[in-house]
Amino acid sequence: MPTVDRWLLPDGIEEVLPAEAARIEAARRQLLDLFSRWGYELVITPHIEYLESLLTGAGHDLELQTFKMIDQLSGRMLGLRADITPQVARIDAHTLGQPGPSRLCYCGSVLHTRPRPLSTSRSLIQLGAELYGDASSASDIEVLTLMLETLTACRVPDVHLDIGHVGIYRGLVQAAGLDDDCEQALFDALQRKAVDEVQALASRVDAVGLGAMLSSLVELSGGAEVLERAHALLDGAPESVMAALDDLSEIAQTLRRRYPDIPLYFDLGELRGYHYHTGIVFAAYVPGMGQSISQGGRYDDIGADFGRARPATGFSTDLRLLVARGEVVAEQRRGIWVPYSAASDLQDEVARLRSAGERVVVALPGQLDADAYQAGCDRQLNHVDGQWQIGKISI
Amino acid sequence: MPTVDRWLLPDGIEEVLPAEAARIEAARRQLLDLFSRWGYELVITPHIEYLESLLTGAGHDLELQTFKMIDQLSGRMLGLRADITPQVARIDAHTLGQPGPSRLCYCGSVLHTRPRPLSTSRSLIQLGAELYGDASSASDIEVLTLMLETLTACRVPDVHLDIGHVGIYRGLVQAAGLDDDCEQALFDALQRKAVDEVQALASRVDAVGLGAMLSSLVELSGGAEVLERAHALLDGAPESVMAALDDLSEIAQTLRRRYPDIPLYFDLGELRGYHYHTGIVFAAYVPGMGQSISQGGRYDDIGADFGRARPATGFSTDLRLLVARGEVVAEQRRGIWVPYSAASDLQDEVARLRSAGERVVVALPGQLDADAYQAGCDRQLNHVDGQWQIGKISI
Repeated sequence: MPTVDRWLLPDGIEEVLPAEAARIEAARRQLLDLFSRWGYELVITPHIEYLESLLTGAGHDLELQTFKMIDQLSGRMLGLRADITPQVARIDAHTLGQPGPSRLCYCGSVLHTRPRPLSTSRSLIQLGAELYGDASSASDIEVLTLMLETLTACRVPDVHLDIGHVGIYRGLVQAAGLDDDCEQALFDALQRKAVDEVQALASRVDAVGLGAMLSSLVELSGGAEVLERAHALLDGAPESVMAALDDLSEIAQTLRRRYPDIPLYFDLGELRGYHYHTGIVFAAYVPGMGQSISQGGRYDDIGADFGRARPATGFSTDLRLLVARGEVVAEQRRGIWVPYSAASDLQDEVARLRSAGERVVVALPGQLDADAYQAGCDRQLNHVDGQWQIGKISI
Repeated sequence: MPTVDRWLLPDGIEEVLPAEAARIEAARRQLLDLFSRWGYELVITPHIEYLESLLTGAGHDLELQTFKMIDQLSGRMLGLRADITPQVARIDAHTLGQPGPSRLCYCGSVLHTRPRPLSTSRSLIQLGAELYGDASSASDIEVLTLMLETLTACRVPDVHLDIGHVGIYRGLVQAAGLDDDCEQALFDALQRKAVDEVQALASRVDAVGLGAMLSSLVELSGGAEVLERAHALLDGAPESVMAALDDLSEIAQTLRRRYPDIPLYFDLGELRGYHYHTGIVFAAYVPGMGQSISQGGRYDDIGADFGRARPATGFSTDLRLLVARGEVVAEQRRGIWVPYSAASDLQDEVARLRSAGERVVVALPGQLDADAYQAGCDRQLNHVDGQWQIGKISI
């Protein structure tokens, strides 16, 4: 590798320079403090783990996204985490083992072998919050609200919210008794919103009404009126489907009351994360960005692979994306420039100023006062009549 | 992998639970703020890079410590960073390219294929600061002082400091004109402090006095008197050796004046990081711990592999170690418990309290007020005469 190329980073892997790093750090603190005020406690999960541990539970879909390497100590395969959610679920299920509900949050880097669809980056600073141990929609509402507060804290403009519930499709398809191939085909068609295919597949269902209900899912997307239409079209559906619809209605009502300005979009055919989600699924979008800026949902029993099935709901986002799309202001503290000097009491004065919270940059031999500006200073420490005084920069 | 084992973490890879995570987060903020007050700007470096980039400059010694994996996009070999220092050097040399001195700091996870000597952990939260662009001992003193302030901020007790200077050995060995094998043997013997071997090898040196000087290095370790002895024993050594000794004396004098309580230990045969260090090397130790808790030194020209050789000096530490050995107190904010209620104005009151900085935990359906304690609350929100009031927990 010639010298000139050694600084090249792999595609989709980024380094962050001071101005952006300061904003990311500011957002990180602000959001972890927000989570703390809501009762969520920080945990720090490992960057690498045995591959089997990473790919259990909600991690099943992550196999292709996970970098793999050999552990020299055990000879076993390790994975570089591609998602922190399954790790936090393990902490809740196994390590903490709290009897009642627990609230946990996290912030850390995750890496993907390939960029996700509609993205170019392979590295995220994943930030999220999880609520375990409560199966009611009160928990879903809490994490959804916390997600919106997260976006608000970073002043991300023009957010709209997509909401679905995988329990609706799951309840219908179970009652319909489709064979595996047919169910898989229906699932694929629904994800592509291929109306004709969905109708053709749904027409194979014998049970009265269920075929029509399944095929209606592809059209049940849009504003608040979707829920009313769904109540009519899905009348007579299995109990779990109606319960899911009630959940959705309650959540929608609460959100409309608390966030009247955030447009809600319902999509009952939305099956994102179907393999591990068990209830409501949601995602926040901003204009001009194909992928969601933040997403989450319910994924009960995620801890089962670690020996303890618990209700779970949560959300996650990418801190870099939040900072890029929002307006996070890092405190720009201008500093005090200290010209190079051998005065013996200078260090005491510098230490005193720093203890008082000042940013103080001490000149190195040969540096001119003109360098003060590049060092982010707007004042200068001068020795006047045997006293240290802060004044204007002398150039 | 049976369910019961899925939670096992690889040897030396740790997860961090809330109590410790809170202390680590508190220390992280405190130290990044400290660095900022000294003029050091935060950068965030990638967790993975092309292997060649990671192993250049100061990274040469990291080959065995670096986890490797294949990049699916380029087919090339990637490494998981085992040290952040070379990455920050790249940012200084290539990305930022500032003309004058620059001060950068960082905090992030690094991973090692095997535990370092005297350690069991393979994962560190590496935190450090680097000063580029100035070759004078003023920079060395600044980073050394900042390292001591870092330890002080985390209230790490009983710190003592080891200081050496690789320029002394380097200057002598160059002047001695030893062949490669002999030099390697001498280097190994010196690192093991094998007095007899060192003397035997040094005796092969023809140049008058140099053999004795080289063999004196193995004995030049101890308190402040070492520098005086060195001035006598190394009298007549090459100019670079005397300059190194002068540097050391100046640094020692400054430290003794500013930190009279921190014991200084000099070791002129100390060659830690000899392959990339070019000047002073230092490490802080605490009782009962074989490895250093924090270390650093000068490594000029580290940026050469990225197209720009610059003087450089810095230090790094492990945030988890600092927190484990120091006394970092995380603010323990007790919260307000909100019993489960459907009252329509409750959410407004909760939002108001959180905006005011309070930690507020809202009960989930079925939770009893007794759960308030487990949720870290010491007060409770009650509805009294149509008003929300904060009072004692009702059990």
